[in-house]
Amino acid sequence: MTAESGIPIRRAVAADAPVIAALLVDFNREFGEPAPPPAVLAGRIGELLAGGDTAVALAGEPACAVAVLRVRLSIWSAGRECYLAELYVAPARRGRGIGRALMTFAIDLARAEGCDYMDLGTSETDVVARHLYESLGFDNHEGKPAGPVNYYYEREL
Amino acid sequence: MTAESGIPIRRAVAADAPVIAALLVDFNREFGEPAPPPAVLAGRIGELLAGGDTAVALAGEPACAVAVLRVRLSIWSAGRECYLAELYVAPARRGRGIGRALMTFAIDLARAEGCDYMDLGTSETDVVARHLYESLGFDNHEGKPAGPVNYYYEREL
Repeated sequence: MTAESGIPIRRAVAADAPVIAALLVDFNREFGEPAPPPAVLAGRIGELLAGGDTAVALAGEPACAVAVLRVRLSIWSAGRECYLAELYVAPARRGRGIGRALMTFAIDLARAEGCDYMDLGTSETDVVARHLYESLGFDNHEGKPAGPVNYYYEREL
Repeated sequence: MTAESGIPIRRAVAADAPVIAALLVDFNREFGEPAPPPAVLAGRIGELLAGGDTAVALAGEPACAVAVLRVRLSIWSAGRECYLAELYVAPARRGRGIGRALMTFAIDLARAEGCDYMDLGTSETDVVARHLYESLGFDNHEGKPAGPVNYYYEREL
């Protein structure tokens, strides 16, 4: 791991909404996905942070990487569960352990929020992210690790 | 589709928590997953229904099938998003269109809750469920329908 694994990482506060939105818009633009205007997204991020079901981690000053967590009460345990909604590292800063450091921080943040479970969806071809998640204990097999794979399905309504 | 596709389906209310819990415990027992005692789970279901982020659909009187939806504000749109947390049809009632009727109801329920997006995770080998989801417009490919598949990852914390 290079020196950048020591990059400062912190939990975002309300004033970070524009920075978070800018990173997320960059994320979607890079992958050709639609994104609202940054100011609109910043407003929504502020609403989510205020609502209490969303925690965001930022790496770097100025921030170059973001993880967005959504938290709610679990069905099956007395605790809470965490969904990793977004994880993004700016292209120029990749390959230096920032994603790993940010995910490690995010897992600790989820635990601090009372979560005992975490899930996420990712693409078959996003091999760098998959390797990262797998190395951190995430598994995409039912009855892990030997079961059939689990797919992530979605649709617009 | 058989006559059971006309089975009564309704949105659950607080008093249904024990029935919902019983079905979900049957679900987990059938698939060898751990489950809390039904009374404990009923308490949690009651808490979720009261909390406002959970909507449940029940089919049959007495209920023989359940769909559990979790709803929250979206990041990327001004609407809400829905996660299909659980879908279960009692074994003796399968193969008669109840799952399809329940999912159709669940999609309408999600829309009524202001959702413009719905997602779920399911196993590669659960071909009946996958066929149902796919026939209802769910897709497990990034940049659907021709992209790489999307995997669902999870871990305990």
